[in-house]
Amino acid sequence: MRAGDDLPALLLAAAVSNNKSLLQGDILVVTQKIVSKAEGRVVALASVAPSSQAGEMAETVGKDARMVELILRESKRVVRLAPGVLITETRHGFVCANSGVDASNIDLGSVCLLPEDPDGSAQLLRHRIQDLLGIEVPIVISDTFGRAWREGQTNVAIGIAGMSPFIDYVGRRDTFGRELQVSTLAVADELASAAELAMGKLDRVPAVIVRGFPFTPGSGSAREMVRPAERDLFR
Amino acid sequence: MRAGDDLPALLLAAAVSNNKSLLQGDILVVTQKIVSKAEGRVVALASVAPSSQAGEMAETVGKDARMVELILRESKRVVRLAPGVLITETRHGFVCANSGVDASNIDLGSVCLLPEDPDGSAQLLRHRIQDLLGIEVPIVISDTFGRAWREGQTNVAIGIAGMSPFIDYVGRRDTFGRELQVSTLAVADELASAAELAMGKLDRVPAVIVRGFPFTPGSGSAREMVRPAERDLFR
Repeated sequence: MRAGDDLPALLLAAAVSNNKSLLQGDILVVTQKIVSKAEGRVVALASVAPSSQAGEMAETVGKDARMVELILRESKRVVRLAPGVLITETRHGFVCANSGVDASNIDLGSVCLLPEDPDGSAQLLRHRIQDLLGIEVPIVISDTFGRAWREGQTNVAIGIAGMSPFIDYVGRRDTFGRELQVSTLAVADELASAAELAMGKLDRVPAVIVRGFPFTPGSGSAREMVRPAERDLFR
Repeated sequence: MRAGDDLPALLLAAAVSNNKSLLQGDILVVTQKIVSKAEGRVVALASVAPSSQAGEMAETVGKDARMVELILRESKRVVRLAPGVLITETRHGFVCANSGVDASNIDLGSVCLLPEDPDGSAQLLRHRIQDLLGIEVPIVISDTFGRAWREGQTNVAIGIAGMSPFIDYVGRRDTFGRELQVSTLAVADELASAAELAMGKLDRVPAVIVRGFPFTPGSGSAREMVRPAERDLFR
């Protein structure tokens, strides 16, 4: 996958050659990495001149200063800095390690940035698939994030098109007549996690078809999943 | 479901009556709520005498003082307290809202606590299913937790038996020959999230069979998923 490649057409061709088909009612989950590659969000480290701030942080965190420079450029705010750990808030508002800048599954000497506008990327994918197949399929762009308090990482949704990221239970009652305490399920993140189970990290599976999930069609964005600062108790 | 009911036998009977079967190689995901009910972890609020500390916190947070009393009894530590929000570290080490104490899908006037030892509960389920069916099936006990930084809740694993909660990529190399940056996938949490998509909150589906996931058999616990204090940057 290279900048300018027609990702949706290649994904549909790959589906056919794997005896899969994308149908109305399905959801397509696509990894951030392949979307970023198709959008040319790949940077050769040799082309990066680190600032002195990046150089100092790189010493604390134990990373390449050019990598830290890119992480800072992609961030609004450093959330935590410690040896081996650089957690930032990205330009999009995501709190994650290294602003999502990642060196795996890419040419040596280069790193991959998150899409500029992952919700926009999802919309483009959705429209192109509609052109190619004549069906409207929600898109989830997934990436692998760490969490507070829990070990290990899980896949979450960083871009969405064609569905709500949530199922909202606010005001709904259980069979005992009581209002539900759990109000809002982040189903887009659960879909990203479910798809990861079928992807793995070394199998080069960049997309998964989810079939049979009764999603709520309509507009929706991953940006809605970012907790606003005034509701964020863990800044 | 009442205290002392044979949950595994009832689940297997329900599977048969829904034309499902549990096979070797499957994973069984079971909700915390039904496990807690079968274990008698249900408390009538009328039986609870709140301490003065619980009374004060209840005013701040805007909850029933008896509920707050139970939340504190189930906790090691209050992590955040704000109007409408009481986040604690449970006796097990989980960081979640209300120590997992929950009033939905239960008799009015009662609340449900997390199992005393969810990993132990998972082991018991696994052994009983082995007795009944003669197959070894990993068990994931799931609950719905909020997250830092992201809106909405997702299902995570609070009890595990028969599998590792992680797939570990430490030291493994991608097809370009580089060590992977993502090191440890929390697949037990991803399995819990995937299962939630088939459960919903109002459909009274307390268990889901996951088929086709190549899990790593062996011992494993949800306790391993709790980030130790010395690695936790968000206490």
